[in-house]
Amino acid sequence: MVLITYDVGTDSPEGKKRLRKVAKQCVNYGQRVQNSVFECLLDPAQFSVLKHKLDKIIDKEKDSIRFYFLGNKWEKHIEYIGKLTSFNMEDELII
Amino acid sequence: MVLITYDVGTDSPEGKKRLRKVAKQCVNYGQRVQNSVFECLLDPAQFSVLKHKLDKIIDKEKDSIRFYFLGNKWEKHIEYIGKLTSFNMEDELII
Repeated sequence: MVLITYDVGTDSPEGKKRLRKVAKQCVNYGQRVQNSVFECLLDPAQFSVLKHKLDKIIDKEKDSIRFYFLGNKWEKHIEYIGKLTSFNMEDELII
Repeated sequence: MVLITYDVGTDSPEGKKRLRKVAKQCVNYGQRVQNSVFECLLDPAQFSVLKHKLDKIIDKEKDSIRFYFLGNKWEKHIEYIGKLTSFNMEDELII
């Protein structure tokens, strides 16, 4: 699993537009667990494609996107407190 | 390393106050790499103390805090694009 966190400068209309574009791309590949945090199941090729897309969207002087690689046993390496807005993405595969 | 991401409801003065308190606690233990993302070097006892403090601060119906355990080789499991606001916390130990 790749955890993606983004911090986009939204102090201008252009910033807000970038934020929407970044969010749209991240949602395509994963589950939004917080406003700016996504847990994405990506193979290396998919990660490369997504990273390239985000790289073209952002303003590199104002925005920050970070990728944390949690590995395959990622579910054992997460805790949370407060509101839970996530679900196990792999549940979709269970019929 | 424990990655801490928080998403605090800030649609009220109370929410903004909680946000400041949460941020203050996280900064005590780690490095702010994005507005709401902290990379913290914590042993199990320190993690337990911090989690307890945050648990007492937040409104569990409105706020969300997530903890991701990156392990000891965490530096190999991070990539980023755009603005870099982080530094290696362990650099502080080098004289």
